[in-house]
Amino acid sequence: MVIYLDNNATTKVDERVLEAMLPYLKEDYANPSSMYEFSVTPANAIAEARGKVKDFLGAKNEKEIIFTSCGSESANTAIKGAVAHNKGKKHIITTKVEHPCVLNTYKYLEKQGYKVDYIGVNSNGELDIDELKEKITDDTALVSVMWANNETGVIFPVEEIGDIIKSKNPETLFYVDAVQAAGKIPINVKDTNIDMLGVSGHKFHAPKGVGVLYVKSNVILPPLIIGGHQEKGRRAGTENVPYIVGIGVAAELAQNALEYEGTEVKRLRDKLETGILKRTYNSRLNSSINNRVPNTCNIGFEYIEGELILLHLSDLGICASSGSACTSGSLEPSHVLRAMGTPFTALHGSIRLSLSRFTTEKEVDYAIEKIPEVIDEIIKISPYQNELAHLRERANKGK
Amino acid sequence: MVIYLDNNATTKVDERVLEAMLPYLKEDYANPSSMYEFSVTPANAIAEARGKVKDFLGAKNEKEIIFTSCGSESANTAIKGAVAHNKGKKHIITTKVEHPCVLNTYKYLEKQGYKVDYIGVNSNGELDIDELKEKITDDTALVSVMWANNETGVIFPVEEIGDIIKSKNPETLFYVDAVQAAGKIPINVKDTNIDMLGVSGHKFHAPKGVGVLYVKSNVILPPLIIGGHQEKGRRAGTENVPYIVGIGVAAELAQNALEYEGTEVKRLRDKLETGILKRTYNSRLNSSINNRVPNTCNIGFEYIEGELILLHLSDLGICASSGSACTSGSLEPSHVLRAMGTPFTALHGSIRLSLSRFTTEKEVDYAIEKIPEVIDEIIKISPYQNELAHLRERANKGK
Repeated sequence: MVIYLDNNATTKVDERVLEAMLPYLKEDYANPSSMYEFSVTPANAIAEARGKVKDFLGAKNEKEIIFTSCGSESANTAIKGAVAHNKGKKHIITTKVEHPCVLNTYKYLEKQGYKVDYIGVNSNGELDIDELKEKITDDTALVSVMWANNETGVIFPVEEIGDIIKSKNPETLFYVDAVQAAGKIPINVKDTNIDMLGVSGHKFHAPKGVGVLYVKSNVILPPLIIGGHQEKGRRAGTENVPYIVGIGVAAELAQNALEYEGTEVKRLRDKLETGILKRTYNSRLNSSINNRVPNTCNIGFEYIEGELILLHLSDLGICASSGSACTSGSLEPSHVLRAMGTPFTALHGSIRLSLSRFTTEKEVDYAIEKIPEVIDEIIKISPYQNELAHLRERANKGK
Repeated sequence: MVIYLDNNATTKVDERVLEAMLPYLKEDYANPSSMYEFSVTPANAIAEARGKVKDFLGAKNEKEIIFTSCGSESANTAIKGAVAHNKGKKHIITTKVEHPCVLNTYKYLEKQGYKVDYIGVNSNGELDIDELKEKITDDTALVSVMWANNETGVIFPVEEIGDIIKSKNPETLFYVDAVQAAGKIPINVKDTNIDMLGVSGHKFHAPKGVGVLYVKSNVILPPLIIGGHQEKGRRAGTENVPYIVGIGVAAELAQNALEYEGTEVKRLRDKLETGILKRTYNSRLNSSINNRVPNTCNIGFEYIEGELILLHLSDLGICASSGSACTSGSLEPSHVLRAMGTPFTALHGSIRLSLSRFTTEKEVDYAIEKIPEVIDEIIKISPYQNELAHLRERANKGK
């Protein structure tokens, strides 16, 4: 039995997505760039998918949609492309809580001689917009801000940030990593000051291995992957027709499921969150604000080890995570929670639970029953018994 | 009806490859980097695929295998990585007949200030090894040479070239684009001086959207796609588990089919080639050497237009090409044939036919019947009737 509560790490491919992909893994295998009749079907399928993704992101034009192999490729293309586009400018800005594909690309550019400002967040994970505004100068080539945080689900006001950036420097390019926003909240880049935006298919029920980079039509970026003329010369490599078709269908389904996401998924998330918080005395919500994507919660359990929680949950078939799968295996506590100033006592015992439209009430009920039991078990072997007793006492008084 | 004779553009996914992939597009969808039990199956599947690819390329160690999203990404990672690795050196070498993913990356580096030498070929498409040898200096960061040419199938002696490179400068890195060699001739990088080698899954019956970059264990390359720790930090992005499994199985199947490729596919290719040459008086083989991959032939039809041939063939269900699908749509004649000094009269009327292990005798017989008919039809509307009459006369005399 698998209770999959790690949908921010990856999601199950929707059966309708797979169904739509299969012909291109079977009989319709032509190279869409070829000149014969046989390539018309895959070429048309890509065009159709591009239209669906355009609608999903609220872009103005299909030409603004570039298919990539993943969210990380989208981010690398946008960031490295933006600094090449703004060649003279040597200052770039991002936040302290970005995904590694943005943070590590910034660190790479820092080594190349770029001056980088990393903007902080408050204890709820909200961005310091004033600090961001202050840092933008004539020399700022790029600002990169995620739409929703992968660990906490906190939403940044990227439309507002775009306006601030352009009011201070119209030449500064703005990249939005929307990997954790896509499929969870509406995205509509049209009429915003977002120049570039990246999403990853496998976060909204397309397969792993396909992403999108939106680039506003007036922005010319050099390709990251140089070669043939595919994607109008902006991304070489024979088109991955099955997955492009897949992400198109997944985008359409995600668009249609947005209301369900914002109501039912949110209800289940809130039920799960409240249920666990109520039944554990050493827990705290790592971000309590309402301004979060509807599927994510991040709970800190004080004085116990997150890895141990995950191990016990895994034994019960419950999949959860202590942060990004892209950083798992590292023993460092989450850079996101550290930036939020999460107390040391809860930093190592924080876990992320993330739902999807496939999460059932039964699964949530099971998790509400089992997770507190696991926490109680692990509390017993914690070396911090005095501190835990103190917390327990305080919780009992609160009742 | 589709007679698919364009297997150098892409290939049909082998049913056994798709079969092996499907569980990872369905129930086994976990992120392989996650910490729970549910991710063990996909993580193991990747490890198994890495082993199969290691064997296919004759690498020493699984750690030398990096999964990428395509051959172009492999080439970009290798080439840009190699010049970063050899930071002080400002000279790079390649050939005039490389695939656009190599040539255009070299042109990009040329614009960045690198001095580039493009080595020529003779009329059979064979590389001028002496010229290559002469060009290597202390300042040479990288040599990039394809194993087999995508348009003519001509094989370059990359093992020998590797030895020459290292004898002149052991620090010069050597990248081999083996996209058109993989699955057609044996590859065994162990005990060669090849530092890096790229292949693309969809050229040997895996899907489009997955490639491999082999990097010898003593060579440290920076990643092209920066981000998470996937592929030991050498290629970020959540692993495309289904396609990685697919390329693993495809590699194993291709390895097992190598003998068939070298005998049966070659027999069919030779039959096709001879059949067409015999039945058309204005034709010439653009490379007549034996040292070609067994599936490819490139025939020039003098005084007629290649695009028109392809259009007529398409109407008959026959898929062929005038060069790389990655350059199709461009009106420029093939850079490969131009480098070979192919006569102007045949340059525009050259077509490539490429077979696979799925090509049948019946298909070849059909093509031998239909292609000469098409050529005869097009000859009728050629403006070069005098020249064609001269060729016809000469051919009749030859009989």
